[in-house]
Amino acid sequence: MFQHNGPDRTGGRAPLGGDTGLLAPVWAGTGLESALSDEAWVAAMLEAEVALARSQAALGVIPADAVGPITEGAGSVRMDVAELARQSRGAANPVVVLVQRLTEAVAAVDPAAAEYVHLGSTSQDILDSAAMLLSARVLARVEEDLARTAVALASLAREFRDVPMAGRTLAQHAVPTTFGLKAAGWLGSVLDASERVRRTAESLPAQLGGAAGTLAAYEEYARTTDAAGPGHGLALAARFAGELGLREPRAPWHSLRMPLCDIGWALSAVTGTLGKFALDVQNLSRTEVAEAAEPSAAGRGVSSAMPQKRNPVLATLIVSAARQLPAHALVLAQSMLAEDERAPGAWHAEWQPLREALRLAGGAAHTAAELAEGLEVFPRQMRRNLELTGGSIVSERLNVVLAPLLGKAEAKRVLAALSREATADGRPFDEVLAKDPELTGKLPDGLTARELLAPERYLGAAEEIVDRVVRRFEESRPWGDRL
Amino acid sequence: MFQHNGPDRTGGRAPLGGDTGLLAPVWAGTGLESALSDEAWVAAMLEAEVALARSQAALGVIPADAVGPITEGAGSVRMDVAELARQSRGAANPVVVLVQRLTEAVAAVDPAAAEYVHLGSTSQDILDSAAMLLSARVLARVEEDLARTAVALASLAREFRDVPMAGRTLAQHAVPTTFGLKAAGWLGSVLDASERVRRTAESLPAQLGGAAGTLAAYEEYARTTDAAGPGHGLALAARFAGELGLREPRAPWHSLRMPLCDIGWALSAVTGTLGKFALDVQNLSRTEVAEAAEPSAAGRGVSSAMPQKRNPVLATLIVSAARQLPAHALVLAQSMLAEDERAPGAWHAEWQPLREALRLAGGAAHTAAELAEGLEVFPRQMRRNLELTGGSIVSERLNVVLAPLLGKAEAKRVLAALSREATADGRPFDEVLAKDPELTGKLPDGLTARELLAPERYLGAAEEIVDRVVRRFEESRPWGDRL
Amino acid sequence: MFQHNGPDRTGGRAPLGGDTGLLAPVWAGTGLESALSDEAWVAAMLEAEVALARSQAALGVIPADAVGPITEGAGSVRMDVAELARQSRGAANPVVVLVQRLTEAVAAVDPAAAEYVHLGSTSQDILDSAAMLLSARVLARVEEDLARTAVALASLAREFRDVPMAGRTLAQHAVPTTFGLKAAGWLGSVLDASERVRRTAESLPAQLGGAAGTLAAYEEYARTTDAAGPGHGLALAARFAGELGLREPRAPWHSLRMPLCDIGWALSAVTGTLGKFALDVQNLSRTEVAEAAEPSAAGRGVSSAMPQKRNPVLATLIVSAARQLPAHALVLAQSMLAEDERAPGAWHAEWQPLREALRLAGGAAHTAAELAEGLEVFPRQMRRNLELTGGSIVSERLNVVLAPLLGKAEAKRVLAALSREATADGRPFDEVLAKDPELTGKLPDGLTARELLAPERYLGAAEEIVDRVVRRFEESRPWGDRL
Amino acid sequence: MFQHNGPDRTGGRAPLGGDTGLLAPVWAGTGLESALSDEAWVAAMLEAEVALARSQAALGVIPADAVGPITEGAGSVRMDVAELARQSRGAANPVVVLVQRLTEAVAAVDPAAAEYVHLGSTSQDILDSAAMLLSARVLARVEEDLARTAVALASLAREFRDVPMAGRTLAQHAVPTTFGLKAAGWLGSVLDASERVRRTAESLPAQLGGAAGTLAAYEEYARTTDAAGPGHGLALAARFAGELGLREPRAPWHSLRMPLCDIGWALSAVTGTLGKFALDVQNLSRTEVAEAAEPSAAGRGVSSAMPQKRNPVLATLIVSAARQLPAHALVLAQSMLAEDERAPGAWHAEWQPLREALRLAGGAAHTAAELAEGLEVFPRQMRRNLELTGGSIVSERLNVVLAPLLGKAEAKRVLAALSREATADGRPFDEVLAKDPELTGKLPDGLTARELLAPERYLGAAEEIVDRVVRRFEESRPWGDRL
Repeated sequence: MFQHNGPDRTGGRAPLGGDTGLLAPVWAGTGLESALSDEAWVAAMLEAEVALARSQAALGVIPADAVGPITEGAGSVRMDVAELARQSRGAANPVVVLVQRLTEAVAAVDPAAAEYVHLGSTSQDILDSAAMLLSARVLARVEEDLARTAVALASLAREFRDVPMAGRTLAQHAVPTTFGLKAAGWLGSVLDASERVRRTAESLPAQLGGAAGTLAAYEEYARTTDAAGPGHGLALAARFAGELGLREPRAPWHSLRMPLCDIGWALSAVTGTLGKFALDVQNLSRTEVAEAAEPSAAGRGVSSAMPQKRNPVLATLIVSAARQLPAHALVLAQSMLAEDERAPGAWHAEWQPLREALRLAGGAAHTAAELAEGLEVFPRQMRRNLELTGGSIVSERLNVVLAPLLGKAEAKRVLAALSREATADGRPFDEVLAKDPELTGKLPDGLTARELLAPERYLGAAEEIVDRVVRRFEESRPWGDRL
Repeated sequence: MFQHNGPDRTGGRAPLGGDTGLLAPVWAGTGLESALSDEAWVAAMLEAEVALARSQAALGVIPADAVGPITEGAGSVRMDVAELARQSRGAANPVVVLVQRLTEAVAAVDPAAAEYVHLGSTSQDILDSAAMLLSARVLARVEEDLARTAVALASLAREFRDVPMAGRTLAQHAVPTTFGLKAAGWLGSVLDASERVRRTAESLPAQLGGAAGTLAAYEEYARTTDAAGPGHGLALAARFAGELGLREPRAPWHSLRMPLCDIGWALSAVTGTLGKFALDVQNLSRTEVAEAAEPSAAGRGVSSAMPQKRNPVLATLIVSAARQLPAHALVLAQSMLAEDERAPGAWHAEWQPLREALRLAGGAAHTAAELAEGLEVFPRQMRRNLELTGGSIVSERLNVVLAPLLGKAEAKRVLAALSREATADGRPFDEVLAKDPELTGKLPDGLTARELLAPERYLGAAEEIVDRVVRRFEESRPWGDRL
Repeated sequence: MFQHNGPDRTGGRAPLGGDTGLLAPVWAGTGLESALSDEAWVAAMLEAEVALARSQAALGVIPADAVGPITEGAGSVRMDVAELARQSRGAANPVVVLVQRLTEAVAAVDPAAAEYVHLGSTSQDILDSAAMLLSARVLARVEEDLARTAVALASLAREFRDVPMAGRTLAQHAVPTTFGLKAAGWLGSVLDASERVRRTAESLPAQLGGAAGTLAAYEEYARTTDAAGPGHGLALAARFAGELGLREPRAPWHSLRMPLCDIGWALSAVTGTLGKFALDVQNLSRTEVAEAAEPSAAGRGVSSAMPQKRNPVLATLIVSAARQLPAHALVLAQSMLAEDERAPGAWHAEWQPLREALRLAGGAAHTAAELAEGLEVFPRQMRRNLELTGGSIVSERLNVVLAPLLGKAEAKRVLAALSREATADGRPFDEVLAKDPELTGKLPDGLTARELLAPERYLGAAEEIVDRVVRRFEESRPWGDRL
Repeated sequence: MFQHNGPDRTGGRAPLGGDTGLLAPVWAGTGLESALSDEAWVAAMLEAEVALARSQAALGVIPADAVGPITEGAGSVRMDVAELARQSRGAANPVVVLVQRLTEAVAAVDPAAAEYVHLGSTSQDILDSAAMLLSARVLARVEEDLARTAVALASLAREFRDVPMAGRTLAQHAVPTTFGLKAAGWLGSVLDASERVRRTAESLPAQLGGAAGTLAAYEEYARTTDAAGPGHGLALAARFAGELGLREPRAPWHSLRMPLCDIGWALSAVTGTLGKFALDVQNLSRTEVAEAAEPSAAGRGVSSAMPQKRNPVLATLIVSAARQLPAHALVLAQSMLAEDERAPGAWHAEWQPLREALRLAGGAAHTAAELAEGLEVFPRQMRRNLELTGGSIVSERLNVVLAPLLGKAEAKRVLAALSREATADGRPFDEVLAKDPELTGKLPDGLTARELLAPERYLGAAEEIVDRVVRRFEESRPWGDRL
């Protein structure tokens, strides 16, 4: 069995805290560490408790003057989150203990008000509402960063609208494209992802159902104060959602988990989109390709060993997030398999994947904006690469031109043979072609092989597509006057 | 909703082989085996080729009289799919070989027309369009089966609107709920899933981009026939999409794979929703619970060993699909990480997960309709289970009533102690309670413990929620007059 | 777009730190929060740096008296991990910045020694070795907790070796089994998982390869000091591994990631095993089944709403981990798709899933030991449930006995009909059977229906299997004298 | 290694249908379509039934002369698998109906023997044993193809042992490596994967447990024939496993699913390993890199559009498998969460992922052998790429040499600045360096910058590592004399 040999030689420092992003530099320092820290979750749960009290006071279930002390108590809860976490094992969730701490804190302000804390409520109402609150806030940040990214990509699409470069399929030069079209492709996908994020953010419901989703205790408490008429439970849910800025739930959803599935999907769409952008940047910045480079900055892209390195680190961070996201989305989707009125395990398995997914997508969006805004593009190198094969990259065009003359299949056969010959001899394709006067003699009047093989003459609808995507960006952009 | 425009133009050949569902009885015999068999994929690819020819003829790029022979050829392609599959290894996709077979078949009808097959096109245009075609068709079926399921669940929700049963959380009796609310919960989630399916089905784009997404060869062919003005490529894409009944693509999306991510997610939402329904049915049909049973049918639920068994097989089939779906959706989401203009591997990894996900979700929806339409519900057993603990399941209500008198914390402490005592002695909770006159004496005027512990008096907003969900069903149902 | 309505009303407390387990109570308070915190990763990376210096000193590449200051420096690095994390964005990993901090700390002790920090090394050597170190330590803890679990399960298997209970398949009573066999099944699986953990722990290699896996800089530095003969690089790797108590790597494995795949798999095996145990406990503790209960403890299993609740929280925590683990293992397996000599993204995507998987499996093992050691078993309730169907659960036996007399198929048909009749009328199966004298008259001499339907007479090889598994436990247990 | 004992006793029927691989060309035509078709599963289940009869006859439970008719019946079952699949919905698995078909077929040969079909058995015994049988056979093929791959890679490692090429990290040139080391890395990983496959193949158990894992009906039938002494059930299981060439199960494992988790993991290890190899080949064959190419063959790598294309299709096929495998392994791992004595859904969700994983890994291994055996390597182009940056790729070495003279940090700073200058000016690094006589003057005696920047002088331990890995290959190769 494994034996660690001896004591820790580095001084045995006591670990102090938790996750600060050391293993996820994609979101470290972007503000997401505090937005989704354990403390942030506690704060959101306390927000939910305060919103509940405000709602119940507004509907006459608890005295109006209990709201102040509860709010004050929530602001003064003595929190050692690590201790809270440990105690959470008892109920398998942190709410039970947090409510005790909150009750004590409120009692310190006003003992009578303490009786009105968490009234009629259940752990899941508080934790789910807090989760939606944090999700909505992070989704809003993601949307902003996607907007920044879109602005930058639109600018690239316009600037390089007609700059030709090699289109690559299955890792090989295929036919020419333009860098503008590449940027427009990224842009269109960012707009798609942004729509999905917005739709999801707008749909996130508060949770209010009570112990088993019937709102019974909320109504019972209301009845004891004569505050309840018919419909009190649903009215309370609506008010509660309004207090939190969340959507009114159509019904309690303790074990009907579509919102979590939606979030996972939307975030997958985000990191999938940005990951594709980043992957392309990595390939364009390969030493042999060198058509683009990340924005340089002090300390960025450095290696601990090699002085000459300038690594595509922003793209790497984005890809690292994109490779993880679908796994978290999968766990959230699997959590829909939740039995009864509250599932023993499925619910509890959602929390950490939700946080990780939000952090990673948030970090990826932040990083993508930085990457898009500073991307360096090298048109001359694009041209150089286009010429690498001596025009072979435009041989599809020759094929089209020769097809009516030789037949489609024969034309392709001939050109493939010439291409193989060029590769075998290490000679440019156009040179090989020129040696075949019988073939070139067949070209339509006024068309030389040289012209036919000019990449910039074989760009198809690239520019029109760029224009169309940019127009979509300009018309639909949700960020209004901000940008 | 998606409408396929007109009859199958490829001759309606009978599917010959395919995966028959032996290892996936959830979809065996539901028609999905032929809808998504290898033959169905070939047929859909041929449909795409025919649609391309029709579009090019309409725009004057190919002669109008080539369409007939191409259509006829597509209908008469001699297909040994297994052989086709083997030959697909050469290009890593089946289109290259299929185009050869199609060209031969067309040439047999009209050699001149054979020159116009697959003109300017690329494998991915055909395969992606075929995939969208099949997806749209299966999504339409899924939507229909969700509609059937919704109708049946709405009927259950109405019929059992106020039938009390034990609400269960973390595998324990919690507070009473109603079977109507349970059914309404399933129904609401089915409506949610249905919306996602419809939205996705309506958004599926045709694919047309040519070798690297610039539409260059399409435009070049058009130019050689003087048919092309500016914008020919995009006009062709629009027409092609129309021919197939798919959405016009905003831009070629060879390596921008949001549609696949969307499909995977929507199908996850479907099986997640149905899986929750099935899981609940399984738990309700446990021998000890026995509150519901699957519809019986000859040969259903039988065991190879035990004569007495009546297994919840429909629910089991649905759960088996729900456990697999997110993994396929994950692969589709991961495939967004597609480099360059066509990715060597990411694209190719989509096909089988897409098929599997469509099959499984389609089978689950079909099976769920059967389950919902025939579910047997046993209210008397629900009542019996409610009484298992002698009223302890309503102790939350007692807590609410006693809280103002004893203080919230003290009330809970006292009741928890009584509950433990009842469990320890194996006595009903109400009996133990009755022995504590000091406590029962504190109850408000006119309220006896017996009344307080009546489950049917502690149902909260259950009925109102049922009504609200059923109303939503009635108002929003997309199936119009069909049901 | 989503708008949060107004400022945080709870006092706007500043989030203080990171993840303490609030969202993962399965490991909160088990020591895993400190064992795998960001600080613990930093400490492990510093351990790797110190081990490198010690190894290089031993081989004469750096002065022997540099080791002391480097060790001291490593012990005194001024760490603000959050700041370190932020700075990690520059290189997409934390090592570059950490080496700077370490170099400064060593220089403060002895400026000359600072020149020998991280000599010839590369970020991945340090981070991978640290990851293996932490993994090995957590795997050792997992193994210990599996051993504790095994001891407790073996005790249950022995104690309840022949206590009959209902065997359940597809949620229905099937035939009798024993609780001893159930416990032995869990035990056997724990032993299997333990073997996989041990094998993996023993195989974890140190990482030493230098910038691109050739060990060139290590050798070059050695050459400058005349310390290098042939084979210096490999000798250094062996020594380094020895210092860390890790296996000597066969070759650098910067982009050959089998060890990560192995860890993910072994941890999946652990949580899958323990999750099955927990799932069974949940089902046994359902209110209607009530055959087992979790160990009670102050504050455990409580609900925030319902006084009577005693939730199976330990099982719930374990299931929550088991539902997440395979997703992390999947990301680790996907990371094997790592290009070139170091992958831009695949490597970076491993860190957080590795930590999460270790934490979750570690927490699950810890929790499982607690659950197994305290599980309460209720044989009387098992007997009661066995009798629920009036002997129908033993009808397979009747089938076997009647088959030679009636024919196999006919026997099954008759018994199924009787069973249906019993269910339909709500009567016990044995009562229905007794009314059919023609059938019971056919029973072999001396065998009455009552005897045939006695569950304790139809336990097959249950006891022998228990004995076999317990014997395996006794013979193979790797924990030697410790337990 | 796994040895199947003897010929297929079910008559070796030709597979009739199945999934032909159209959407998975990675395995189309490799034989895996028939090895894992629906028909193959049926045949394997029949093999299990025959093995059971043979075992029971050997132990005296059924007449010896029933074996012949049962074997004959199994060979003559009239199978329409599609119909069988449809009927499987009734029991949620195909065994119940298959046993009816088998019973009829045996009865047609000998009515008395039909009474001894499937005696005492349960669906899962048959299906699980069939699954293990097919798994063992495919794993054996995978192992053979890994061996072929290893032989080819060892040959590459030897041939190109000291051929320098650019080592690349984070998509950038890092330091030189050799192609031999690259090949050795692939080889080592293939050996690792092969070990995991073998270990798993050897561990696959037969399944025999009866209705709920107690073997009760098997023992009861034995008792009716006076054949049973104590231990009959376990003896039968041992014999049955022997008949099938599978490992004797330690205990029934109907809901203890480690074997499935193991298979998924081992296959993930295979495709992860081969996927890394394929990914590297793709990158090496990029048009701009051009250091390697796939073996050419008629029709391979062709495009439907571009005559010049020679796509890395074998690598693409392998990557397509590698991207899917972990998702199937995940479903198998999740299936360990199987409740009670047989899980309603978890078991059923295993079948298709198991088949897909086996097919994909089998296809990937087959394809990898083809790729490795034919890989073309272009050392001249490797040299050309090494020189692309004018020696900058060896600047780490300069750093090492200058560190003692300038201090480590200062040396790195100076070299980074020179490197940036070279990049900015588009000049070779060595040229820029040569202009700095102050720096080059500092070089140790006899060392010129030119020598220091020679890639072939900075290969570290590359050759030794190659030798070590090749030695491991030679010593450990499990394929003995076959290769």
